[in-house]
Amino acid sequence: MTSMSILFPKTPLPSYSFQKPSITHFAPTFTLPISIISKPKTHQKLRVISSSLIEPDGGKLVTLFVEESQRDIKKRESSLLPRIKLSKIDIEWVHVLSEGWASPLRGFMRESEFLQTLHFNSLRLENGSVVNMSLPIVLAIDDQQKIRIGESTRVALVDVDDNPVAILNNIEIYKHPKEERIARTWGTTAPGLPYVEEAITHAGNWLIGGDLEVIDPIKYHDGLDHFRLSPSQLREELTRRNADAVFAFQLRNPVHNGHALLMTDTRRRLLEMGYKNPILLLHPLGGYTKADDVPLSWRMKQHEKVLEDGVLDPETTVVSIFPSPMHYAGPTEVQWHAKARINAGANFYIVGRDPAGMGHPVEKRDLYDADHGKKVLSMAPGLERLNILPFKVAAYDRTQGRMAFFDPSRPQDFIFISGTKMRALAKNKENPPDGFMCPGGWKVLVEYYDTLVPADNGKVHAAVPA
Amino acid sequence: MTSMSILFPKTPLPSYSFQKPSITHFAPTFTLPISIISKPKTHQKLRVISSSLIEPDGGKLVTLFVEESQRDIKKRESSLLPRIKLSKIDIEWVHVLSEGWASPLRGFMRESEFLQTLHFNSLRLENGSVVNMSLPIVLAIDDQQKIRIGESTRVALVDVDDNPVAILNNIEIYKHPKEERIARTWGTTAPGLPYVEEAITHAGNWLIGGDLEVIDPIKYHDGLDHFRLSPSQLREELTRRNADAVFAFQLRNPVHNGHALLMTDTRRRLLEMGYKNPILLLHPLGGYTKADDVPLSWRMKQHEKVLEDGVLDPETTVVSIFPSPMHYAGPTEVQWHAKARINAGANFYIVGRDPAGMGHPVEKRDLYDADHGKKVLSMAPGLERLNILPFKVAAYDRTQGRMAFFDPSRPQDFIFISGTKMRALAKNKENPPDGFMCPGGWKVLVEYYDTLVPADNGKVHAAVPA
Repeated sequence: MTSMSILFPKTPLPSYSFQKPSITHFAPTFTLPISIISKPKTHQKLRVISSSLIEPDGGKLVTLFVEESQRDIKKRESSLLPRIKLSKIDIEWVHVLSEGWASPLRGFMRESEFLQTLHFNSLRLENGSVVNMSLPIVLAIDDQQKIRIGESTRVALVDVDDNPVAILNNIEIYKHPKEERIARTWGTTAPGLPYVEEAITHAGNWLIGGDLEVIDPIKYHDGLDHFRLSPSQLREELTRRNADAVFAFQLRNPVHNGHALLMTDTRRRLLEMGYKNPILLLHPLGGYTKADDVPLSWRMKQHEKVLEDGVLDPETTVVSIFPSPMHYAGPTEVQWHAKARINAGANFYIVGRDPAGMGHPVEKRDLYDADHGKKVLSMAPGLERLNILPFKVAAYDRTQGRMAFFDPSRPQDFIFISGTKMRALAKNKENPPDGFMCPGGWKVLVEYYDTLVPADNGKVHAAVPA
Repeated sequence: MTSMSILFPKTPLPSYSFQKPSITHFAPTFTLPISIISKPKTHQKLRVISSSLIEPDGGKLVTLFVEESQRDIKKRESSLLPRIKLSKIDIEWVHVLSEGWASPLRGFMRESEFLQTLHFNSLRLENGSVVNMSLPIVLAIDDQQKIRIGESTRVALVDVDDNPVAILNNIEIYKHPKEERIARTWGTTAPGLPYVEEAITHAGNWLIGGDLEVIDPIKYHDGLDHFRLSPSQLREELTRRNADAVFAFQLRNPVHNGHALLMTDTRRRLLEMGYKNPILLLHPLGGYTKADDVPLSWRMKQHEKVLEDGVLDPETTVVSIFPSPMHYAGPTEVQWHAKARINAGANFYIVGRDPAGMGHPVEKRDLYDADHGKKVLSMAPGLERLNILPFKVAAYDRTQGRMAFFDPSRPQDFIFISGTKMRALAKNKENPPDGFMCPGGWKVLVEYYDTLVPADNGKVHAAVPA
């Protein structure tokens, strides 16, 4: 079996590989000096410039870390400022912003950015060009916090233990129109939207925007930090591999062989198009997910097993965690998922059926039309440079005993195994048909559901996402 | 008193003037041969091209009327097609589309246009340019109608008496996601939105898009058709007047002297900017309005009185009716109001406080932030060519006994008379302070409220809008 560690066989950065307990020099996790991120050395800069990677939005990748030499000074400064305590999701957004996933955004949105996002899913820059921006990246504060901030033009953002995380400069405080934000982002205001209940309903009635200075890189100390490559690090890795096409695959679910088939087939198509070295960015989402999704740590274990199985070629695959929280906002959110990957160097984006979708929280139907995501994505302002690759439908082909692209001329030969069906099988420790998923990956899923404590009513309690 | 008829003193088209019963040659109303609209004579075309008017969206003003010589043929064709009966609001949209207010749209939206409108408030054209389009202009059908259409690629659109209105060609039928449409257009799904209750809640579950061929120009036979100048006619009139700047003032309420002050002051500012002949397009909305708005016929009477009073200069003012129905969708709708006026030749747009806004239908607050309309408008894609002129706040200055721009250094001198306050005074036959509105205009308002029958509970029943 191919070890996942060889996915990055030539990397000089040990922590670019899956952490393997038996290979001690891979631990401690991610130790890349921050100065390289915030201020690349000249030869690295040149390497990036000479590559054929797509330009980041706005022309320049934003990084919002303070220089290492300035950290202590900034910590002292922050101790003198009004404080805002960040939630877990807020910190995920600081992470996203700090590394430039949302380039050219330099901090939490001010009102003009917030309004453009809600109404246009895009931002017009000073030079007249347009970049995509479909999700509000905002920080809410309540009346008391607003009063405490008073006339200050800067605030300190602190974690749950009051450790300084960042300074927000040239702040602007404006009303948080929750109902309108929800309606325009999700296309519904029905109760039960996971991100809304987690991060909006009980949030303050004000939003605070400004320019971020992030004191320390955001780390989660969950054994997975070495997978959280920044756009700058991904660009470096993709350049090192001489990628002439980068195709991103966003996922928040276990990988089955249908996914693998699609990714392999995409590479084949890109080679046919004349690209010499297409690289797959396999990019599971690592931020907030709803309670009944499989938690990140288990998904990463599952991905590892699938990759060990050799279904995907480690030489042409980069595995990394995308730090954004999940909105489940369908066609609005898929634009964010695509846009962020441009900033990491991807110029091809694979989009599936009903991306970032979920069931309607109140009605018995999907929240979004399954085709709207790819249609909206293909027309979205600021994404013209990105090549959208619609997902071909894969299903279990009984005649071949493996996942294959659905052939409408012989529908009777195919079995569709939905995510719901897959979860039900794993919960019940049943096996899917041979060839649906590699046995090691399936075992991880069964193990995960085994860890969930059944409730009195016989239903399975969801674990808290990692 | 200046007669409103001199507002168009040099027009060769008699019906460009307010209809005055005493001047019989102004009746019958609007008789401009349709061929001039759908196919301008060469010299008229050249005149338009040589003027300095702003270009229509997409470069060419769309007109969707069939040639006069083809009308009978099209009527016969339509009699053989599946029929869709149009509501009053549907016909208003056919009117809007047929004259090119929504240029470059050539008919009811297909799904790609609908989705771009909902998500981006704009459409990307084939040449890559972007035009603004913030309101869905769509036609709903129900399951039965969809079945009746079957495999036909064309349908006939008929009025309530089954008279053919238009043919819709190359049709596309797609799902009508009502909840999502409402949420993304209004930023709320609260019950009680007037347009939603009138035109969406009970509409069919499908939308039908396609290219319109309109058989006869839309007329309402309400004595006001001569005020309904098409964008092409307005461009002709503005060109004839040698306008080098055109500033549009959208309104759906009675005009008071604060409005007049603003319009006069805007002209003064444009002259200061170096324009030689700025023309005001005073452009009341004539389509569907909510029940408690003052109906169009009464507003036009009121406007006539105000203009007779000589507050606005007829030489530099064009009065016309904008045929669109009203959504009350605030920042989303104000873009439509502005975009449509570009197509009529306006390159300046006056935007007030809370444009197209209303009270929240459920909560005790305004539905939209009063400043969002002008902010969104100033950033809207496709409106970059339009100069946005924010409304200065006018209030009644007690020291001068007239409406004046609010002076924050002496707030105690000013009285703000809201629309609600104005309506309450008129209902109770009380007079506003001298100088708030010309007496003739005020008398019309009082007369209007006199026509409303008081209900049992003492409240005034709203009249059905004209």
